[in-house]
Amino acid sequence: MTDVIALRSYAADQWLAAGGEQPLLAAIDGSVVAEMPAPSDPAALLDHARRVGGPALRAMTFQQRGKLLRGLADALTARKEELYALSALTGATRSDSAFDIEGGIGTFFVYASKAKALPDAHVMLEGAREVLSKGDFLGQHILAPLTGVAIHINAYNFPVWGMLEKLAPTLLAGMPAVIKPATDGAYLAEAAFRIMIDSGVLPPGAIQLLLGKTGDLLERLDGQDSVAFTGSAATANRLKAAPAIVRNTVRFAAEQDSLNASILGADARADSPEFDLFVKEVVREMTQKAGQKCTAIRRALVPAALIDQAQAAIAARLAKMTVGDPRDETTRLGALAGIRQRDDVIANLAALRVEADLVTGGAVPELAGALAKGAFFEATLLRCDAPLTAEAVHSVEAFGPVATIMPYGDADEAVAIANAGKGSLALSVFSHDLPTVLRLVAGTSPFHGRILVVDRDNAAASTGHGAAMPNLQHGGPGRAGGGAELGGTIGMMPYLQRSAIQGSEAVLEAVGRL
Amino acid sequence: MTDVIALRSYAADQWLAAGGEQPLLAAIDGSVVAEMPAPSDPAALLDHARRVGGPALRAMTFQQRGKLLRGLADALTARKEELYALSALTGATRSDSAFDIEGGIGTFFVYASKAKALPDAHVMLEGAREVLSKGDFLGQHILAPLTGVAIHINAYNFPVWGMLEKLAPTLLAGMPAVIKPATDGAYLAEAAFRIMIDSGVLPPGAIQLLLGKTGDLLERLDGQDSVAFTGSAATANRLKAAPAIVRNTVRFAAEQDSLNASILGADARADSPEFDLFVKEVVREMTQKAGQKCTAIRRALVPAALIDQAQAAIAARLAKMTVGDPRDETTRLGALAGIRQRDDVIANLAALRVEADLVTGGAVPELAGALAKGAFFEATLLRCDAPLTAEAVHSVEAFGPVATIMPYGDADEAVAIANAGKGSLALSVFSHDLPTVLRLVAGTSPFHGRILVVDRDNAAASTGHGAAMPNLQHGGPGRAGGGAELGGTIGMMPYLQRSAIQGSEAVLEAVGRL
Repeated sequence: MTDVIALRSYAADQWLAAGGEQPLLAAIDGSVVAEMPAPSDPAALLDHARRVGGPALRAMTFQQRGKLLRGLADALTARKEELYALSALTGATRSDSAFDIEGGIGTFFVYASKAKALPDAHVMLEGAREVLSKGDFLGQHILAPLTGVAIHINAYNFPVWGMLEKLAPTLLAGMPAVIKPATDGAYLAEAAFRIMIDSGVLPPGAIQLLLGKTGDLLERLDGQDSVAFTGSAATANRLKAAPAIVRNTVRFAAEQDSLNASILGADARADSPEFDLFVKEVVREMTQKAGQKCTAIRRALVPAALIDQAQAAIAARLAKMTVGDPRDETTRLGALAGIRQRDDVIANLAALRVEADLVTGGAVPELAGALAKGAFFEATLLRCDAPLTAEAVHSVEAFGPVATIMPYGDADEAVAIANAGKGSLALSVFSHDLPTVLRLVAGTSPFHGRILVVDRDNAAASTGHGAAMPNLQHGGPGRAGGGAELGGTIGMMPYLQRSAIQGSEAVLEAVGRL
Repeated sequence: MTDVIALRSYAADQWLAAGGEQPLLAAIDGSVVAEMPAPSDPAALLDHARRVGGPALRAMTFQQRGKLLRGLADALTARKEELYALSALTGATRSDSAFDIEGGIGTFFVYASKAKALPDAHVMLEGAREVLSKGDFLGQHILAPLTGVAIHINAYNFPVWGMLEKLAPTLLAGMPAVIKPATDGAYLAEAAFRIMIDSGVLPPGAIQLLLGKTGDLLERLDGQDSVAFTGSAATANRLKAAPAIVRNTVRFAAEQDSLNASILGADARADSPEFDLFVKEVVREMTQKAGQKCTAIRRALVPAALIDQAQAAIAARLAKMTVGDPRDETTRLGALAGIRQRDDVIANLAALRVEADLVTGGAVPELAGALAKGAFFEATLLRCDAPLTAEAVHSVEAFGPVATIMPYGDADEAVAIANAGKGSLALSVFSHDLPTVLRLVAGTSPFHGRILVVDRDNAAASTGHGAAMPNLQHGGPGRAGGGAELGGTIGMMPYLQRSAIQGSEAVLEAVGRL
């Protein structure tokens, strides 16, 4: 085992005192990987971001800030193997780690590329000129960066991607960020953060790292600050109702629980290519990152006539997903992020089993040697035959390799079941019949932030159910939290203030060049 | 005096039992105008909106719904004199009433016109196709109406405009509305609502009226519902932190307190046209609707060298603003909405006078006859010579004919003072010097939802500081609540859900024609 990493927060362009607090354990064998530092003073970070980071970023144009992202992406790429090594300790296979690391870096590359189409100026125009009266008096909406701080509260499942997907739109918009990674896997987030600092690409104060407890951070925010939270609904609900958040109209975007569904169209037969594609996607979503993806398929909806065949096919494929050391190339299912997370999965599984039967999995696998202390869990398929009257299968998110297969009658019923999730991040439809696709999309789109439509012709080109794309919205209504991250400029909106400027054409023209 | 109006709520396409409860008094003489009805059951309204109103509206295309707005605008125009007669009882002069009534109807006309450019379909496309991979696999953001209910909680100051400015984007988006007018002036809101119902233009369940207490309305909302609130920050903060609102991620847009500023540019001299324009605008904003506009100028910022002259000019002009019966054509300043509102103004004025000196006004005028029982108040100008260290003048909104004049040094100081409002709906700049304008706009835009730039050349065409335009955003960050109403499609966003559709070009093409 290598030395224990003494983690440090980074505030006011300085690394703070190291380690000495809570040990962080490797997900794969329970060994100590790192130690958390003592909590730091949020007031100092906020003050530095407001006084130094914000002005420095706002002095740059959108295009100039795009170049920062490109520089950071290059720096991260050059040192990505350091990240892969740490990522394995979080339980991730090489492929899982790529989703986190390359996915995160890819977000920077895409935003850097998008920035080339943004103004080489300090404000963005939104929409066209509006005629307000007869005469030289018009309106123009502009977008300018908020003058406060972006607070990023990240989840444990994607230490790299989760940090970078929030950071790209924030920096491009022109706001400094205070990043609070989840404690589990914080060593991976700190490593990626350190590479960005080492690169020297960013101006002073642009990013800071707050490890551990946030103290009175939220109570110090005001209407020019913006919080982006990813995690559980329970935590989100507590934070978003915090007195200062409400009193000061602090922007608060949450990406929280989501019981994502995938629907096999009623046009499919057991020998249709879409049947196979659906089965493979369900299995991939259950096992990738050990099912610890906010977008993972939790509910697999199958036409009633095909439910037994789909169940058998999924179970057969799951049986081939070797669970074990993620550093082993034959492993298809790595570990959960930690024992606590596994305990949560086990508890949630018990709640689901009140309404659903166990098809396969459901237990801690017996692994030899050090791995016995790892946070492994079997891929677990459940079946619920009465999804229209069930509740837990639509509301309890077992954040691991767990999904429930359920039958439906007609398209309206499939829509009702999918929407019973009360708002989800992602839905997928596997169908080769356009009317079927349209009925499902029309019925589900108000409840879903992203809908993937796959058939035999585009499957090879599909980016997959679980992949949040930098140029598409990531976020969903209701239970999913109501946020809208990524999606190019959509994801920048939490960090920009819209202002409607009214004046003469000459004034509007000059404002657009600010 | 005419008969007392027995007000009724309107639920499930029926007028409910009338009157019998709290009397509503005329603002001008304290006579009883109307009686409120008993509270009604919110569950029935919500259920009807969800089961009947929503499906009926969603069955129509955006263009078809635009025609509804046109029909309603025509119906309201045909019977607008009924509204003017009631509006006078709220304290409004003919000109004030026009702002409320014609302004409201105008919002419908503008949205009806904007609808012609929207799709004759059930979803809107947002942005362009996104390339996601090599091959026939692309992304497209679409917008579709939420399947729940829009709850409109309106303020007392604009019984007509306040209702219609929320309703236009809601109906056009395709959501049914439950409208809860303020109790003061509810007779005017009910009359306008009644004209819309009588017109027969709307499908069943599209709009319902809930007078009086809302009971457990908010606790019955979920993630497909959307609340739009206008009123005090204190009430907004209580409602937006209500358990069900937080737990169910109910959309909640607030338009609340706002200490709007107007800045006379440092390029102005006492004989500049902009000086005159500024003085006139400050006086108009103080007196129109007796200062009961959320967008009214509360803080008048003047270059220190001109402060005495500006003060004298504003005071001189205010002296000509006759206060009295709003039905009298010579009246320039009508009554506040009621005695309670006047008591609030008096209390807030006392708070302001701790930091600011009284220049003129500040008392209840002595009026003869029945008007002595009206809610009149003198136009009141204050002066604060230390605005950078003051707090109340930037935070206490005396919602009446009250403004504070204050000096500033350079442009940076003007920006700091304006932004000390911590987020406002509207700002105006009176300057004929482009560099001055640009410095002020650049510095203040992150804190202001709308910025008006006026000079000698465009003044005649200007729509004025206080006028929220249907095609421009109405709403501001921070203290102003963070909402974004109106602004064409911007104001429709609280009622639409964005979904990113991924699939083949043929699928995206067909989805766009849904």
